[in-house]
Amino acid sequence: MTWKIERNDLSQQELLNLESLFSLANGYIGIRGNFEEGYSEEFVSIRGTYLNAFHDITEITYGEKLYAFPETQQKLVNNIDAQTIDIFIDKEHFSLFEGEVLSYKRVLHLDQGYTERLLHYRTPSGKEVKLQFRRIVSFSVKELFAIEVKIEPVNFNGEVRIVSKVDGDVSNYVNRNDPRVAAGHAKLLSVENIGEKDDIIFVEDKTTNSDLKAACTTKHILNVQGNKSTQIQDKRVEVTYTFELDQPVEFVKYNVYTDTLRHERDLVEKGIEMHGNLSNQSFDQLIQSQKDYLDEFWNVADIKIEGEEKLQEGIRFNLYQLLQSAGRDKYSNIAAKGLSGEGYEGHYFWDTEIYMIPVFLLTKPELAKQLLIYRYSILDGARQRAKEMGHSKGALFPWRTISGSECSAYFPAGTAQYHISADIAYSFIQYYLATKDINFMVEYGAEVLSETARLWMDTGHFYQDEFRIDDVTGPDEYTCLVNNNYYTNVMAKHNLKWAYSVYNQVRKEDPTSFKELSQRLDLTEEEARDWNQAAEKMYLPYDEELGINPQDDTFLKKAVWDFEHTPKEKYPLLLHYHPLTLYRYQVCKQADTVLAHFLLEDEQSFETIKASYDYYEKITTHDSSLSSAIFSIMAAKVGYYEKAYDYFMESARLDLDNTHGNTKDGLHMANMGGTWMSIIHGFGGVRVKESGLSIHPVLPEQWTQYEFTLHYLQRQLRVKVEREQMTVFLEKGDRLDLTVYGKNITLEEGKQYTGETSN
Amino acid sequence: MTWKIERNDLSQQELLNLESLFSLANGYIGIRGNFEEGYSEEFVSIRGTYLNAFHDITEITYGEKLYAFPETQQKLVNNIDAQTIDIFIDKEHFSLFEGEVLSYKRVLHLDQGYTERLLHYRTPSGKEVKLQFRRIVSFSVKELFAIEVKIEPVNFNGEVRIVSKVDGDVSNYVNRNDPRVAAGHAKLLSVENIGEKDDIIFVEDKTTNSDLKAACTTKHILNVQGNKSTQIQDKRVEVTYTFELDQPVEFVKYNVYTDTLRHERDLVEKGIEMHGNLSNQSFDQLIQSQKDYLDEFWNVADIKIEGEEKLQEGIRFNLYQLLQSAGRDKYSNIAAKGLSGEGYEGHYFWDTEIYMIPVFLLTKPELAKQLLIYRYSILDGARQRAKEMGHSKGALFPWRTISGSECSAYFPAGTAQYHISADIAYSFIQYYLATKDINFMVEYGAEVLSETARLWMDTGHFYQDEFRIDDVTGPDEYTCLVNNNYYTNVMAKHNLKWAYSVYNQVRKEDPTSFKELSQRLDLTEEEARDWNQAAEKMYLPYDEELGINPQDDTFLKKAVWDFEHTPKEKYPLLLHYHPLTLYRYQVCKQADTVLAHFLLEDEQSFETIKASYDYYEKITTHDSSLSSAIFSIMAAKVGYYEKAYDYFMESARLDLDNTHGNTKDGLHMANMGGTWMSIIHGFGGVRVKESGLSIHPVLPEQWTQYEFTLHYLQRQLRVKVEREQMTVFLEKGDRLDLTVYGKNITLEEGKQYTGETSN
Repeated sequence: MTWKIERNDLSQQELLNLESLFSLANGYIGIRGNFEEGYSEEFVSIRGTYLNAFHDITEITYGEKLYAFPETQQKLVNNIDAQTIDIFIDKEHFSLFEGEVLSYKRVLHLDQGYTERLLHYRTPSGKEVKLQFRRIVSFSVKELFAIEVKIEPVNFNGEVRIVSKVDGDVSNYVNRNDPRVAAGHAKLLSVENIGEKDDIIFVEDKTTNSDLKAACTTKHILNVQGNKSTQIQDKRVEVTYTFELDQPVEFVKYNVYTDTLRHERDLVEKGIEMHGNLSNQSFDQLIQSQKDYLDEFWNVADIKIEGEEKLQEGIRFNLYQLLQSAGRDKYSNIAAKGLSGEGYEGHYFWDTEIYMIPVFLLTKPELAKQLLIYRYSILDGARQRAKEMGHSKGALFPWRTISGSECSAYFPAGTAQYHISADIAYSFIQYYLATKDINFMVEYGAEVLSETARLWMDTGHFYQDEFRIDDVTGPDEYTCLVNNNYYTNVMAKHNLKWAYSVYNQVRKEDPTSFKELSQRLDLTEEEARDWNQAAEKMYLPYDEELGINPQDDTFLKKAVWDFEHTPKEKYPLLLHYHPLTLYRYQVCKQADTVLAHFLLEDEQSFETIKASYDYYEKITTHDSSLSSAIFSIMAAKVGYYEKAYDYFMESARLDLDNTHGNTKDGLHMANMGGTWMSIIHGFGGVRVKESGLSIHPVLPEQWTQYEFTLHYLQRQLRVKVEREQMTVFLEKGDRLDLTVYGKNITLEEGKQYTGETSN
Repeated sequence: MTWKIERNDLSQQELLNLESLFSLANGYIGIRGNFEEGYSEEFVSIRGTYLNAFHDITEITYGEKLYAFPETQQKLVNNIDAQTIDIFIDKEHFSLFEGEVLSYKRVLHLDQGYTERLLHYRTPSGKEVKLQFRRIVSFSVKELFAIEVKIEPVNFNGEVRIVSKVDGDVSNYVNRNDPRVAAGHAKLLSVENIGEKDDIIFVEDKTTNSDLKAACTTKHILNVQGNKSTQIQDKRVEVTYTFELDQPVEFVKYNVYTDTLRHERDLVEKGIEMHGNLSNQSFDQLIQSQKDYLDEFWNVADIKIEGEEKLQEGIRFNLYQLLQSAGRDKYSNIAAKGLSGEGYEGHYFWDTEIYMIPVFLLTKPELAKQLLIYRYSILDGARQRAKEMGHSKGALFPWRTISGSECSAYFPAGTAQYHISADIAYSFIQYYLATKDINFMVEYGAEVLSETARLWMDTGHFYQDEFRIDDVTGPDEYTCLVNNNYYTNVMAKHNLKWAYSVYNQVRKEDPTSFKELSQRLDLTEEEARDWNQAAEKMYLPYDEELGINPQDDTFLKKAVWDFEHTPKEKYPLLLHYHPLTLYRYQVCKQADTVLAHFLLEDEQSFETIKASYDYYEKITTHDSSLSSAIFSIMAAKVGYYEKAYDYFMESARLDLDNTHGNTKDGLHMANMGGTWMSIIHGFGGVRVKESGLSIHPVLPEQWTQYEFTLHYLQRQLRVKVEREQMTVFLEKGDRLDLTVYGKNITLEEGKQYTGETSN
């Protein structure tokens, strides 16, 4: 049963959450789990259709605007709506909120990539039908969103009318009680072109400011004879089928989305052309394609846990949603909410590099690569932003963006989070370590590493023979604008060190590319040596007395937040305290130094890492959904297995159980990556470093066993951890050296290593 | 000649500046120096009429709004316009931009409180008249703004028409190129009531959101026979006089302004009533009243400098404008631009306490008292703001405000400047020291000192037996959100110490009030002792190596700004660099630690103060107009007389010479106070402390002598400093002990002390 998410609740609150939970996507199209026929009239719905990276540009207003504050931001557009299918049974409108629902089942199939609604329904006047709705957003044809409706008569034969709509008159979600969503920014699209051609209806919309266009072309197939009429209005098209229901009927709506980012021009024509290729595929065949794609994914990505059904469900759901959300082209990435909602305006953050790429890196590295290519594609924007921010050289990646320019309107917890540039560099390095793809490094990585290294050189400075970085914000947004944030400094150090080492490696292994790159970037050996020098001299704050790394220069001298007298309803703190109040205290929204100790564990002794964990755990609220997973990983590392388990559980079902209360605005994608990381890097103790792959698994008490797969250097490894013993099996690929519990082992294809499980 | 400011330039840029320079005000009404007849059509004018504190409320929008960010702000309203008088000479409209100006003179009379335009004018068709315009904003009847026009025929007898307007259709100034002035916030008033009664016309306007009303009632007196007609339109009233010009004619327009803040209700009726009292005063009599008021002011406030005419002019102009700008009731204070323009929305800042009250304190203490009563009147708002900012107790005064709520939309250089609360406390203490008015202290000061002391207790905390204050911003806005800003800490220390000592003093001297206050504020002896304890343990950063007070905990570890490679056109830096860039370096917008060393010089040794001056001078850009005066004072203190002089000169004529390039938006009031302070506290070496009054004058090389007066403890002292000798003369009042050059002397009324001038 753990391949199915089943939810049948029809309350307002739950329906909103389910719109996010049952959203379908393929990295390009995202469709929220709305009902084709809508809800009851008084219900709120966030009806959403998104094309990844398809955005408009809106103005940012400030009470006081200072130099180089971004003037505009991008905003993911709620796109042309093709979800609507109204069904009239002898003129009575089908709705779950009228008549009688005799049975109802709603399922998301994680192994087959579709959602389903099964109904036994009685109209107010007593006519009974069985209904099945299935919908897919295709993994194999990225432009396709299809809905199938089956209607079976039970106690009634007579006229049925199906009205299918494609609506170009769409708006982004506005909540009048939420000042973050300005009403003026709701209407971003207008209809440019609308009509019907060869049985295919189409709507083409245009954004207000960004000059992007999207089209939806839609074809219907009904397997019985009936009357069809098409009504083309100003902003929407309706197709009506009327027929006699006397046997089971199947109706399929194929919607093909195209946009000018990916399809350049002639969007409608290209959509119509695609329908030609699609029309010979039945809906069952489409679902088979979904299954094939997912079989391949689950073969390497699945984690099997014995002992807890709910948990198994959470893990698979999170991985499934991650797969759905990842952009597959240079225009797109993974938005904070994926393609499941409009929270955070569809922006991409550092979450991708630190919480989501790690998953793909060891399961589906071609997706990790695509996500890094996106970062490369916005490198020029990052160079430009560095200039605006007063830097003479280098690239400063935007804190939040879609098309590459900074969209953050509150710089202390935005632009000041310079660490994103080191996070991106870190991810390029991790990709190299997990693939040894030197060509990718030459073509993309070397340039990103060089430009980010330059940023650190221009941001930091030497003081008493130490390299220091002032006035930045680390991951913890409850402590902003500080000097020598440990996380930032250690990540910058890594960035600088690797920029230097990649410089030398490329020089040695690919002299032609090296020359081209050096010339293009005006890069000298002296500059590269400076990087190394700064890395070696990087100041990493350390407190002798406590034996920990202070979060920044003055963090430990601040008063500790009065947790004892802070009532529960005051959390998350950011909704109840002015930032200045929060900044004044030792209180962390999320893992900061603790995260640095995960990402770069060899920078400090185990004792320092453990003492730091102990210290920061006491003052961290986990008000950010990015926190629990990291604390879980690090608790596992330092041997607090119970804690590791508790943190992990907070992460695994965060959205399924709506524990943060805002799932309706979209899923917490980074947390979903964090769930996988908690198991693989936490309990599994997996690390990918220059020294190679290492595994150090432990088994939580609550489980009887678990099993996961790793894709690493073109091999496939299966790891199974039981109470007494653990095995590492090299399923596919050439001989591989790795370490298990610190012991070097070598595996041949088809062979396994078995050892005692640590505890 | 130094009692007259004469400017005859008619260029666009200069006319805009002169609107500010020739503005007239009396602390209640402010009228910019616009021409009655207007300019040439293509010229821009900021036509302005302001009633101090009369404001509307506008929304503040944020790209990302966080908890307790102010949602609205107050904005000084450009009020009903009564300036317009059009003159038609035989149907030809008089304008300085048509016809021929044969002679022209425009004067502001600093000793008589009026502005004047004298003209010999020839119409396009050759008709010549002499014109004199005089206008006053009365010091004795605060509601009165009057204009007199004299017309004398030269080569022409014939019809003259005068059209006088009162216009209720007014807007605030909007510059489409300046994003700080949102167009949506221009129109703040609408007409409520308009008409004529008993020869008096009236217009009553209402604000959009703040629910305030203002009325202008206007009466005209023409000293010849003529036809009069009144045209009452929707939003304005025009009165037209037509007469034969064959002899000199005098026309006077009396405008009486009333508003609901000061006159509660029946504004028009009250205005009309006041006209009754005014009508027996000729314009010359009004000017005589102005002169009487000013004679008294100049008698104590004037500073006489021999040697530099331009400087003398600057000093008197600045003092005059200060006098004009100071609010005289509990609703009003001194706006950053006084009543001379709309810059900074008419908001009141810390400038009042630190740069302007000192002037009144020693010249016209009843005005200083009024300004402090205003602060007392917004104490409840400050208590409320402290709560919003997460404090359990205390009062946090708003960084910028009119009616008491925080109007600052960028908190790092706004709300975070907690020092304003200590600045206000400082000012109450200074007032007490200069007056020994214990009743005022009991009635107002004790409560303000207690509530601000509470703020510091709740903001700071003990760490290793030191009391520390984290995450605030000092006066220097190029370094925000720091720990243990020296200025803030030392001012808070002073605040706490005095709160404790006033607590004890009131207990001793006024047990009844003490009891009432203790009960009302729920104040215990233990709490007061805690204040003293925190004051004694206050951490004041000191750098052993440099022998200076660091601006904050980490300031000295930052890189020094690269001044060498910063071209001139990049100043002021805030217009060319993102705040994050500025925060990252050792670079100061203005005096910060140096200011603290002036305000509380006994906290550090002379050596530390001098070394600090040397250090900070090198890294201070003086991009704020609040800086030069303080550097002048401190340069004089540490013996850099040339520098003291140069800084002083930058301050003395800042607006007269428009050296900051934005005089058109209003005058720099704080700087005007700074000019006086540079002389009195700088060259004069005057200090008012618990130990009494001390004087330590030096004579700048460029001067042959200077002379100033001090009002202190109900005495009047005249100090004259010549090259060889200086005298202190007790002009009025009881015997007084003071120190001159550190020597204790005692003066009787009418006696003087003479000594050698120090150099």
